[in-house]
Amino acid sequence: MNTRQEKDSIGYVDVPAERYWGAQTQRSFTNFEIGGQQMPREVIHAFAILKKAAARTNAALGVLEQEKSDLIGRVADEILAGQLDGEFPLVVWQTGSGTQSNMNVNEVIANRAHVLQGGDLADDHKVLHPNDDVNKSQSSNDTFPTAMHIAAYQILVENTLPGVEQLRDTLKAKAAEMEDVVKIGRTHFMDATPLTLGQEFSGYVSQLDHGLKAVRNTLDHLAELALGGTAVGTGLNAPEGYAEHVAGEIAELTGLPFRTAENKFEALAAHDAIVEAHGALKTLAASLFKIANDVRMLSSGPRSGIGEIIIPANEPGSSIMPGKVNPTQSEALTMAMAQVMGNDVAINVGGMNGHFELNVFKPMMIYNFLVSARLIGDAARSFDTNCAVGIEPNRNRITEHLNNSLMLVTALNTKIGYDKAATIAKKAYAEDTTLKAAALELGYLTAEEFDAWVKPESMI
Amino acid sequence: MNTRQEKDSIGYVDVPAERYWGAQTQRSFTNFEIGGQQMPREVIHAFAILKKAAARTNAALGVLEQEKSDLIGRVADEILAGQLDGEFPLVVWQTGSGTQSNMNVNEVIANRAHVLQGGDLADDHKVLHPNDDVNKSQSSNDTFPTAMHIAAYQILVENTLPGVEQLRDTLKAKAAEMEDVVKIGRTHFMDATPLTLGQEFSGYVSQLDHGLKAVRNTLDHLAELALGGTAVGTGLNAPEGYAEHVAGEIAELTGLPFRTAENKFEALAAHDAIVEAHGALKTLAASLFKIANDVRMLSSGPRSGIGEIIIPANEPGSSIMPGKVNPTQSEALTMAMAQVMGNDVAINVGGMNGHFELNVFKPMMIYNFLVSARLIGDAARSFDTNCAVGIEPNRNRITEHLNNSLMLVTALNTKIGYDKAATIAKKAYAEDTTLKAAALELGYLTAEEFDAWVKPESMI
Amino acid sequence: MNTRQEKDSIGYVDVPAERYWGAQTQRSFTNFEIGGQQMPREVIHAFAILKKAAARTNAALGVLEQEKSDLIGRVADEILAGQLDGEFPLVVWQTGSGTQSNMNVNEVIANRAHVLQGGDLADDHKVLHPNDDVNKSQSSNDTFPTAMHIAAYQILVENTLPGVEQLRDTLKAKAAEMEDVVKIGRTHFMDATPLTLGQEFSGYVSQLDHGLKAVRNTLDHLAELALGGTAVGTGLNAPEGYAEHVAGEIAELTGLPFRTAENKFEALAAHDAIVEAHGALKTLAASLFKIANDVRMLSSGPRSGIGEIIIPANEPGSSIMPGKVNPTQSEALTMAMAQVMGNDVAINVGGMNGHFELNVFKPMMIYNFLVSARLIGDAARSFDTNCAVGIEPNRNRITEHLNNSLMLVTALNTKIGYDKAATIAKKAYAEDTTLKAAALELGYLTAEEFDAWVKPESMI
Amino acid sequence: MNTRQEKDSIGYVDVPAERYWGAQTQRSFTNFEIGGQQMPREVIHAFAILKKAAARTNAALGVLEQEKSDLIGRVADEILAGQLDGEFPLVVWQTGSGTQSNMNVNEVIANRAHVLQGGDLADDHKVLHPNDDVNKSQSSNDTFPTAMHIAAYQILVENTLPGVEQLRDTLKAKAAEMEDVVKIGRTHFMDATPLTLGQEFSGYVSQLDHGLKAVRNTLDHLAELALGGTAVGTGLNAPEGYAEHVAGEIAELTGLPFRTAENKFEALAAHDAIVEAHGALKTLAASLFKIANDVRMLSSGPRSGIGEIIIPANEPGSSIMPGKVNPTQSEALTMAMAQVMGNDVAINVGGMNGHFELNVFKPMMIYNFLVSARLIGDAARSFDTNCAVGIEPNRNRITEHLNNSLMLVTALNTKIGYDKAATIAKKAYAEDTTLKAAALELGYLTAEEFDAWVKPESMI
Repeated sequence: MNTRQEKDSIGYVDVPAERYWGAQTQRSFTNFEIGGQQMPREVIHAFAILKKAAARTNAALGVLEQEKSDLIGRVADEILAGQLDGEFPLVVWQTGSGTQSNMNVNEVIANRAHVLQGGDLADDHKVLHPNDDVNKSQSSNDTFPTAMHIAAYQILVENTLPGVEQLRDTLKAKAAEMEDVVKIGRTHFMDATPLTLGQEFSGYVSQLDHGLKAVRNTLDHLAELALGGTAVGTGLNAPEGYAEHVAGEIAELTGLPFRTAENKFEALAAHDAIVEAHGALKTLAASLFKIANDVRMLSSGPRSGIGEIIIPANEPGSSIMPGKVNPTQSEALTMAMAQVMGNDVAINVGGMNGHFELNVFKPMMIYNFLVSARLIGDAARSFDTNCAVGIEPNRNRITEHLNNSLMLVTALNTKIGYDKAATIAKKAYAEDTTLKAAALELGYLTAEEFDAWVKPESMI
Repeated sequence: MNTRQEKDSIGYVDVPAERYWGAQTQRSFTNFEIGGQQMPREVIHAFAILKKAAARTNAALGVLEQEKSDLIGRVADEILAGQLDGEFPLVVWQTGSGTQSNMNVNEVIANRAHVLQGGDLADDHKVLHPNDDVNKSQSSNDTFPTAMHIAAYQILVENTLPGVEQLRDTLKAKAAEMEDVVKIGRTHFMDATPLTLGQEFSGYVSQLDHGLKAVRNTLDHLAELALGGTAVGTGLNAPEGYAEHVAGEIAELTGLPFRTAENKFEALAAHDAIVEAHGALKTLAASLFKIANDVRMLSSGPRSGIGEIIIPANEPGSSIMPGKVNPTQSEALTMAMAQVMGNDVAINVGGMNGHFELNVFKPMMIYNFLVSARLIGDAARSFDTNCAVGIEPNRNRITEHLNNSLMLVTALNTKIGYDKAATIAKKAYAEDTTLKAAALELGYLTAEEFDAWVKPESMI
Repeated sequence: MNTRQEKDSIGYVDVPAERYWGAQTQRSFTNFEIGGQQMPREVIHAFAILKKAAARTNAALGVLEQEKSDLIGRVADEILAGQLDGEFPLVVWQTGSGTQSNMNVNEVIANRAHVLQGGDLADDHKVLHPNDDVNKSQSSNDTFPTAMHIAAYQILVENTLPGVEQLRDTLKAKAAEMEDVVKIGRTHFMDATPLTLGQEFSGYVSQLDHGLKAVRNTLDHLAELALGGTAVGTGLNAPEGYAEHVAGEIAELTGLPFRTAENKFEALAAHDAIVEAHGALKTLAASLFKIANDVRMLSSGPRSGIGEIIIPANEPGSSIMPGKVNPTQSEALTMAMAQVMGNDVAINVGGMNGHFELNVFKPMMIYNFLVSARLIGDAARSFDTNCAVGIEPNRNRITEHLNNSLMLVTALNTKIGYDKAATIAKKAYAEDTTLKAAALELGYLTAEEFDAWVKPESMI
Repeated sequence: MNTRQEKDSIGYVDVPAERYWGAQTQRSFTNFEIGGQQMPREVIHAFAILKKAAARTNAALGVLEQEKSDLIGRVADEILAGQLDGEFPLVVWQTGSGTQSNMNVNEVIANRAHVLQGGDLADDHKVLHPNDDVNKSQSSNDTFPTAMHIAAYQILVENTLPGVEQLRDTLKAKAAEMEDVVKIGRTHFMDATPLTLGQEFSGYVSQLDHGLKAVRNTLDHLAELALGGTAVGTGLNAPEGYAEHVAGEIAELTGLPFRTAENKFEALAAHDAIVEAHGALKTLAASLFKIANDVRMLSSGPRSGIGEIIIPANEPGSSIMPGKVNPTQSEALTMAMAQVMGNDVAINVGGMNGHFELNVFKPMMIYNFLVSARLIGDAARSFDTNCAVGIEPNRNRITEHLNNSLMLVTALNTKIGYDKAATIAKKAYAEDTTLKAAALELGYLTAEEFDAWVKPESMI
């Protein structure tokens, strides 16, 4: 591999000749051969946005030449366009402040800008200095949390919320379609009084509506940006007015309501906004797990399960059992939600363990957050497209179950009392007969009364 | 032990002669000898509230005699006054719907009412029937989740939030008191640029303010009550208008903004409101863990630690090391918050695993929620009273640390650039000298410039 | 309340006149009004054992008068007999070293001994000094972890393992009883090829056998005792040979193979043995959750579920649905196991956060461990006694399901190939007919071949 | 994109013309656009091993032509050599049985074999049938768990254990090197009695030794292979002797002590071995978190922290603070271990939620297991190479701390009693003087006695 020499405050290091990154990126690349999980693209792109915003702000406030600001913005745009994707090789498991990824971005911008200006990567002096220019008025300690919030907010509004809304809309339409399909209810996994399939699905809709609201409730905290706090929250080396200005630039660039954090000390030292927002994500995960389980179980069979709904058959289900169809989307969704539950704990551990002026679990926290947010959005969408839209009631099965149900006896509570109603149900069960037969034999009511009182369609 | 016979739909069972509970309570007591964690008093009291509200509503809607309603209310008041505390012996690890605790309350109310009316516990016929009267228009499936929300909402507003607010207020006052105490900052647990002790504490205040808001954001979901859904959410056997009326009664009895849940199917089948609210509690737990850790570490020493604050010496710290004082309140608080993190996972597992029309992890979920809510409130209050109010800066130590700091060099970035500043810091470190000496020796700036530029009090 | 004054190294404090505890207990009682979870009795009893063992060792090694040693042993025996249960009022949420509970035991022993010798609690000078005599050659830092290991080991061998073994034995007997009951298998919750009910249950047996082995694998680490490490692991102030001797005494008193930890620094600073052993407990919890779920689902119905097994009807299942029977033991067991999963995380957080020479999450860690160990033992036993022993196959249902199964087609793979077999199954499903009819219509094989090849009883 | 048509039991599907995968892989690829986490290479390679072993066994037992067996083995070798890495595009979030990845392997082997034999991918008939030949005597339900165990066992012995052993060895060497460096101990993060730096490090060694043993204890369960259970554990369609033979082949191919699982029903329906082994991994994670924290804190400073050890300065620590050096390896290691803690919960959720004959959280479980195992191995190795090997004592600082320590007073307990010793320490602290001065002023002992009794080097 051809290399060139790059220098940082520690000394010289060999870097692949054609790469835009510099000495600090290379050191991190070498020193952290761990795991392989790269810093998420969403974080790199959020960095590009904030570097551009910072450069604009620095120019506007008179501490950076306009030309340098424009150059930084130009490379930032290339990053956002995905043209420099290969230039960010670092993994999540690096310094806990994300300094190395911040410097990776600084170095790539400085070096790429130099080339854009006609310079050569091997030149000793570059048109931009990664620290003094690209990182001006910034620290990793305020840029990385800013990138975390930008990336987190964006993925929620671009992927997670729309994905869940799409599924919610389908389930709502299904609830309406099936609002008259009276079926047996199940509590404790046991036969219970009836409801409609539409009512059952309306519960799922309500779960997702509440979950969406829970996530939206956390956006306000995520909207707060650390930028302007610099090293420890005091804003050292940033010009007056910088924090508010740069937040405004980011809001403009993203079209999202970002604002500067009222308290920069919290914004660097803690990532409670991530912990909080992921707390809402895990609530959605619990809801989706429940819904996917219900769909899995309601569709079970085809002959010896519950079988009250039919789901699309998308793939051969088994490598050995011919003709088998499985609730694979439920499986993918529940697996993904199990992952979210695990990620929540990883994020909690990170959130708890900040010390003094800086939390140093930043890359791990945002990595898990982004994985969860994407999994929820993607898996909800996949479940919707490949399963929920195709759900149909299995009317024969539903009717058969409903008519056999002993729990229709509940309608008699208000007529003959709980105890007598219980006697009827127990007798019918023990003798494997119908409620009506048992009721009449016990002499608790007449056939006419039974028919008038025990009507599933009136019990919903 | 003297016993009497009590009967339920399964048959007769011996019950301690003097106890108000009946057959179903006794069966549960016998069948679930597990663990020993009793159903929390908060849940029993919430049941008393809802039984009273249901009785009032049933009377108002004409399905229960006023006299019976009054009797139920009278016993409910006795329960709320703590006069019947010994009558609720069941543990958390029972049926997952909490049916047995619902029946425990129903039985105690029916039997106690009978005695209040001059009857005898051994009488075959009682003035109230536990199912037909006390449980009228109800099911365990809607009462237990209602009790969960009442208990959860109450403990949050009565204990958790005030406890955290109390600590927040103290920390805010401390932040103001210490706003001029300039000290060294620490990032990565390493020396960094300065800030004031007040600024450091303001970060804690901001964390708690955000955490309080996060918890408050979840109250709206907790305000929704399942009551009126009865067995599976359809409201079978409840009169028209019951759900809205009974929620109004509960709101009146508690002074809290409870309302009937828009979707009763969700309210029985899922406890996402508990999962969501506990997600906010775990966020507070992460914040408190961080704050307690900082206090522990900032007060470390007395001679070989960081020692920048002094905390009250409340107890002899060691059974073997004489004169030792330890940050015991930090320890209690961090242990309690670790528990909250565990409880969160237990709640998640419960929240994920509801099936069809009923989640049957109810007692476990509310048990953990109440433990967490109480731990946060109590531990924050204890930490406040026994530690935070007495925190004082250790000014000698703070000054010593500040003056030695190599990171004051950061002020030179904007004057001489990052690279030269780094050279100064490294030289000072390597030669164990001062920044000024190193700077002058390197000839990067004059003594006058150094004194003008490197002033900790201007770096905050 | 009558009080007397007690003194410790900080000063005087009022203590309830009749209580045996002293100043330090009282301080902790006042300073930690948190949560209400008392230090578990198992820990107090473990302390009694180790105090007796330490006293014997001190006497044997000549650093404590025999008379004092005997006195300590005498009070320790009273504690073990439960005669002093009211004397240990402290909660878990105290100092993280458990110093206050160690001193609680020291004070109670010293004061009770004084009374046993005819002294008065109000006397200024007592026959035993809580630190210099009762705590001789000890520190909280080595006694508390020792008590943790004693309590943990004891509960595992006395409660957890026997409880799980009892259930395992029942399931094994059931597996044998039902070894010929051929039934449909289910994979992905969908119909699959057959197996016997006995085979299905043999899987549960194997799970528990492996889980029991996993727990036993962790006993060796728990057998290591910290005692002898004193304050930081060096054994300061303990006489030569003390560590080995005292471990021998504890082994003798408990009948368990305790030995002195090879490395005392680990034994104080980390509680990996607790983390590790609880890792085995959570494995058992996962197994029990699965088994309880299967039993719940297999017994579902009675008419519209799977219904292949019948479980005992122990209680009326519903307050509103007469005659309903629910899988309540499955519910209690799964709730308890969800708790174990939560406890595991609390323990992990504690285990991760030790610093330098001492982990200060000790009381929280052992509290969670004991709760889990008891819940597993108790809940397994309850599930066994009240459910597993009464499980019976529902033969009609099993036969009906088996005969309808489309997955019997799998037997044809090796005869006609997967693709043709799939065509048969799909045709039978689509036309709601039998496999045989579909197969013959497709002409893939003869009726004789079908009957010879597709025999459920040959497929197991 | 050029495509060809491929067929499975559901019908035709377009597949990229040059890809070896077939219809089922393509369906999964299309139907599960979730998250992006690919099925780990380790699982694919484990599949290659087991497909080869199964083919050999099938040939040996006379149910597969030798030529076909050889062909399968040949392609398996290509997979193991990494030559077909691009042919396994499926993500973790697919069917929970991993059927689609099993079929992906089956299809790639069948199609590649056909090409190796001179055939064309577009041919209708191939020399091998993915189900009837490559998957012969197998099901996804037994192959995927087999691949899980092979992959898990391999990564533990090839990466995790050696990585941790390497770090353990370094720490052991450091402990020996520094066995005479007497330093102040710290309990509760506060000054305590002395120990040597070597003793402190010996605690870490002991932690890792125990953790390594804990992991090794779980290998035996992982050594059990499901293969031979086929669809539901009964071994349907597998020839007599198959299970034992194929386990022997796998043992031979891997050089690891794999054996056939005694109970195949457990092996398909539960993944307790994964839950158990990961329970040991999380124990190691807790240990490593503690060790990394200690190193971070012991090296804190350089001037205002604890600073008793010096760690290598590998990278510029800050983008804004020149000359800053941070404990980056500790940060990477603690972040990675936080991830392991999260993964543990994801695995638990998966392990708990198997139903009947099949756990369908397989891909998620093994994915998390492999991430954890790799993170522990890699991060331990990185921490070792880039940090631990370079740790040096900072002797000046250590001596300064030691000499100032008030806790040296503990040595006087056995001479003058705890209470007087406490008085000395408190006086020295209050008056900011030395222990000796305070002791003499109090008249508790002579200067000679003090010097004879209070000697740090005798207190270790």
